[in-house]
Amino acid sequence: MTYNGATFHGFAVNDGIETVGGLLQDAIVTVARCNATLSVAGRTDRGVHARAQVVSCDLPEDADLDRVRIGVNALCGPHISVREVVWVADDFDARYSAKWRHYKYFVLNTPTPDPMLIDRMWHVREPLSLPMMQLACDGIMGSNDFTSFCKKPADMSGTLTYSMIRNVMKADWHDTGDGQLVFDIRANAFCHQMVRAIVGFMIEVGTHRRKPAETREVLLAKDRTLLPKLAPPHGLFLWEVGY
Amino acid sequence: MTYNGATFHGFAVNDGIETVGGLLQDAIVTVARCNATLSVAGRTDRGVHARAQVVSCDLPEDADLDRVRIGVNALCGPHISVREVVWVADDFDARYSAKWRHYKYFVLNTPTPDPMLIDRMWHVREPLSLPMMQLACDGIMGSNDFTSFCKKPADMSGTLTYSMIRNVMKADWHDTGDGQLVFDIRANAFCHQMVRAIVGFMIEVGTHRRKPAETREVLLAKDRTLLPKLAPPHGLFLWEVGY
Repeated sequence: MTYNGATFHGFAVNDGIETVGGLLQDAIVTVARCNATLSVAGRTDRGVHARAQVVSCDLPEDADLDRVRIGVNALCGPHISVREVVWVADDFDARYSAKWRHYKYFVLNTPTPDPMLIDRMWHVREPLSLPMMQLACDGIMGSNDFTSFCKKPADMSGTLTYSMIRNVMKADWHDTGDGQLVFDIRANAFCHQMVRAIVGFMIEVGTHRRKPAETREVLLAKDRTLLPKLAPPHGLFLWEVGY
Repeated sequence: MTYNGATFHGFAVNDGIETVGGLLQDAIVTVARCNATLSVAGRTDRGVHARAQVVSCDLPEDADLDRVRIGVNALCGPHISVREVVWVADDFDARYSAKWRHYKYFVLNTPTPDPMLIDRMWHVREPLSLPMMQLACDGIMGSNDFTSFCKKPADMSGTLTYSMIRNVMKADWHDTGDGQLVFDIRANAFCHQMVRAIVGFMIEVGTHRRKPAETREVLLAKDRTLLPKLAPPHGLFLWEVGY
């Protein structure tokens, strides 16, 4: 499914607040007449977009999937679009079966902002050095503890209760013209706000306030107090999920 | 200048209503301390976007144009961006000196809408025949009376007080992939809602409800009662103005 995150308070179902998951779940309950509990590949935060989010849930055996898709889209409104509804194996789970997630982060590096892109790209006025940012990518490749680049999860009560080790398989920046820079990052999974923290850090490298080699140093420190200023959510897209 | 038309009630200055021209004029008055009266190349309607609108006005001789641009952009907010402010010849007028206007109209022809494009493309679910729409373009080429494709101007009191003859120099559709269709039209000038009326008509041709040859018939009839259903404003962009 695709959605424009600008109008929602994130994905996670949250009573009384309009979230993507909340709207979707209510729509499925209405259309398929069942008590759907959703599993989602990437729990996007408030303001984050998705190009190809994947969600799984149980549906009645006799459900007409085409009718479900059309009905759910009609109820969810134009900012959410369910592209496809298919039957999967019994043990498939959108979250736990995912092998990797691919996010893209879009930056517009021009002197003036573009009114048509302000809701989907982070406008950075200061000139950025793309080669420096590309060098910084080396520092996060592979399997590492990303504590320094992750917000403390809301459900943690003081102590680290689960691993912050994530395996980054791809991380690179490229220039698509007209001052548009795109960061591609693929990992087995992501901690909370990890992409936005990494992008925030790399923009500091691009403006020469930090050196590319510091990326590795900060990562190895495993120190949450080093968490850089987060890049804003509206430049971030959950792009693809691999199974 | 560029603007996202979604948040404004069109360009024309209109007391008490937020318009692009109103915001811009107020900002110029504040920043340049003068009584600016704007002349504009294309008076876009409510909801219509502009990629390269051109506006002219008088400024004090000692105005610092860089300061004007930065100050005006700061006051107008992120949905408006003044790209460049330059001195022009005394007899230059953004509206009357323009030799041609180029508009683009964007259509998304897919079974499901795209949440990231709903504010900038008209989503048409029914499959469209691009060759039919391209044939229809022939019918509007050249210098013609566009009464059949123009809304009666608000300032007309019953009688036709000015010419509806416009010279269309370019009109074609192309497919840019992923179901995205773009209509390019260039003319010396446009009557009120002319592009949206033409696109509305051509979509009827694309769905086989009308024949391409009817385009010329409707045009030659010079009959406002034949005005087709207008395409919605959010797919329309003032793209370029020639001087």
